[in-house]
Amino acid sequence: MSIHGYILIEAAVGTAQRVGESILALKHPDARVLSVDTVTGPYDVIVRLEADDLDRLGRCITQGIQRVEGVTKTNTCLSVSLG
Amino acid sequence: MSIHGYILIEAAVGTAQRVGESILALKHPDARVLSVDTVTGPYDVIVRLEADDLDRLGRCITQGIQRVEGVTKTNTCLSVSLG
Amino acid sequence: MSIHGYILIEAAVGTAQRVGESILALKHPDARVLSVDTVTGPYDVIVRLEADDLDRLGRCITQGIQRVEGVTKTNTCLSVSLG
Amino acid sequence: MSIHGYILIEAAVGTAQRVGESILALKHPDARVLSVDTVTGPYDVIVRLEADDLDRLGRCITQGIQRVEGVTKTNTCLSVSLG
Amino acid sequence: MSIHGYILIEAAVGTAQRVGESILALKHPDARVLSVDTVTGPYDVIVRLEADDLDRLGRCITQGIQRVEGVTKTNTCLSVSLG
Amino acid sequence: MSIHGYILIEAAVGTAQRVGESILALKHPDARVLSVDTVTGPYDVIVRLEADDLDRLGRCITQGIQRVEGVTKTNTCLSVSLG
Amino acid sequence: MSIHGYILIEAAVGTAQRVGESILALKHPDARVLSVDTVTGPYDVIVRLEADDLDRLGRCITQGIQRVEGVTKTNTCLSVSLG
Amino acid sequence: MSIHGYILIEAAVGTAQRVGESILALKHPDARVLSVDTVTGPYDVIVRLEADDLDRLGRCITQGIQRVEGVTKTNTCLSVSLG
Amino acid sequence: MSIHGYILIEAAVGTAQRVGESILALKHPDARVLSVDTVTGPYDVIVRLEADDLDRLGRCITQGIQRVEGVTKTNTCLSVSLG
Amino acid sequence: MSIHGYILIEAAVGTAQRVGESILALKHPDARVLSVDTVTGPYDVIVRLEADDLDRLGRCITQGIQRVEGVTKTNTCLSVSLG
Repeated sequence: MSIHGYILIEAAVGTAQRVGESILALKHPDARVLSVDTVTGPYDVIVRLEADDLDRLGRCITQGIQRVEGVTKTNTCLSVSLG
Repeated sequence: MSIHGYILIEAAVGTAQRVGESILALKHPDARVLSVDTVTGPYDVIVRLEADDLDRLGRCITQGIQRVEGVTKTNTCLSVSLG
Repeated sequence: MSIHGYILIEAAVGTAQRVGESILALKHPDARVLSVDTVTGPYDVIVRLEADDLDRLGRCITQGIQRVEGVTKTNTCLSVSLG
Repeated sequence: MSIHGYILIEAAVGTAQRVGESILALKHPDARVLSVDTVTGPYDVIVRLEADDLDRLGRCITQGIQRVEGVTKTNTCLSVSLG
Repeated sequence: MSIHGYILIEAAVGTAQRVGESILALKHPDARVLSVDTVTGPYDVIVRLEADDLDRLGRCITQGIQRVEGVTKTNTCLSVSLG
Repeated sequence: MSIHGYILIEAAVGTAQRVGESILALKHPDARVLSVDTVTGPYDVIVRLEADDLDRLGRCITQGIQRVEGVTKTNTCLSVSLG
Repeated sequence: MSIHGYILIEAAVGTAQRVGESILALKHPDARVLSVDTVTGPYDVIVRLEADDLDRLGRCITQGIQRVEGVTKTNTCLSVSLG
Repeated sequence: MSIHGYILIEAAVGTAQRVGESILALKHPDARVLSVDTVTGPYDVIVRLEADDLDRLGRCITQGIQRVEGVTKTNTCLSVSLG
Repeated sequence: MSIHGYILIEAAVGTAQRVGESILALKHPDARVLSVDTVTGPYDVIVRLEADDLDRLGRCITQGIQRVEGVTKTNTCLSVSLG
Repeated sequence: MSIHGYILIEAAVGTAQRVGESILALKHPDARVLSVDTVTGPYDVIVRLEADDLDRLGRCITQGIQRVEGVTKTNTCLSVSLG
């Protein structure tokens, strides 16, 4: 059963586009980047990630996304099926 | 050219599932609900919306989503292509 | 592979003990309560939960813990092995 | 159908006037600057922008306004007709 | 010399449209409503006001706008010419 | 008709006295400094300013007070007669 | 040696004028109200108080000003001479 | 070895004195009230408590102080000897 | 009677794993590290600590954990038995 | 009549002990340091100060305590007798 999450990213002023492109180009063995959107609002970039388990998703965030230049903070929202 | 956004929703404690289901069942003429996820993290529900223009998207948020019982605050992040 | 998380709970003033006891007594089919501590600091009660997958953990939080009287806000921190 | 928004800008202390002048002088191909006001209150400069679509408006903000020296944060409020 | 300001309004969830319409319909002797926009972002409605002096502008805000049903908070940004 | 306001100033730790003295010594053509108090509480210095109009007051704040070394943030409260 | 302070008051939406008038009419034996201003900005009313000592000033705030209808929060800034 | 802490209390507007008196009159078997001060600043009342161990101190806070009418929030700072 | 607490740690972006490993490797004479989890959510690492008394626990936090490179803030929640 | 206050101090991560010791060693002519505690919770060090009047207390804070290396913010709570 795979895991799916939204990573809400704050970026240094003026870097949103470059951060978005860097994450799109990210090849991380642990997770699949489903989409990357630069956005208006309280965040600068929203990424949808999918991985086989939570540990892999976490590694992709802390060792992949958080190391992209310009990223200042990530907020993770994991999808939970309550049905 | 259509518009696409993320609606980050805060819900009253204990209502996340019901809010998610109500939004999924929402038939609003102005916008298409692409996905609804109940999530962990600073928000309770994340909705992806698509509409033909910003006014329609706005109407779906203020007259559709914000009137769902249990919704206490919505934060809108509109996707912007910077390419 | 099971999932393990910390639920940081804010409770109505004067209800910490009762909230702690109610959660300890909670029999939720989806998750195991590993420990419940009433604490000093920015939160009132910290719960460690374990479940077989994220969906079950989420259901225990939104349909179990969040419905305990006195709980005003829950913050979920999911353990991620980065090793 | 054009898009119209308010950009609420926070500037480094002592730079409001220069930021306002730089934005007024900004010639960005994607959007029209309708007005620039230095203001009292929680923000330092308020800009009204108009563009043919959201993507152009977004590019003007992230690649034009956010790169003006002294700008530390931008908050975008897009006008929505709910009529 | 007249005074011009932006009133950034937070409204109760689900009331943005009605608040906007009520302010548009406001006939206050002390100030002229230049525009009213319902918006996405951290505020719900943005009003541009003009008055002959600050006292009249203040009266229109506290005795006109703040008494509109649904308005929960107003933030005033007065335009200042630094030229 | 003159304008009168309170400037609530946050200063770098340990600089309150020097900031207060610098503002007291400020000779700005656009506004009169009515009083300067170093204070306890959420702010470090409170200044009362008077000017002939809002533009002059604004210039004194952004080009005078905000350029004093040690000032990190100013919050302006303009007096409004509602009588 | 007397004590002098600024009381920064937040008032319920729409009550600033009435709060200001009530405080102006306040006859409290322990302190002298030097001025009352309804203001724009993060606060609604600013009061300058003077008393013979801190205890009297405190009593005027907690037993006088804080009991005025519409007052939701008071922030006290006491003037300190660092000379 | 006894434990000593500061309880920083926020009280409903206008209740500081009554809260202070109620805590002073509190006879809780688990802890000794060393001092109670009504204060200016971000808190309304500061209490110094001493108990034989952390559990007793915690019980005095949650079952004694937090149940005093008018108390809206308590923040506990436990003294730690780092020598 | 020993003392047990949760240390909720915020770390510099991109350092969560290294902070977690450094704390796990910490040999502090005053306290026992019961567990270290890198986590999703408002914190980056959660540590459970046990010590013989509060002073020893405090020393381990301020002289051990807070000196680990990458740690930017620690929040301590001490377990209290209210039974 | 003397004045008595609590100074709630935030210190740079890892410096609490040194800040506490420096304040204890502080010989300031204007005020008496009654106690210095390094603490858990939202602050790092709590100091109780006493002085002959508010000005002296203020000088000890801004010219003594705020200049201690590691101090990043001070919050002053002055004791007020409401009896």
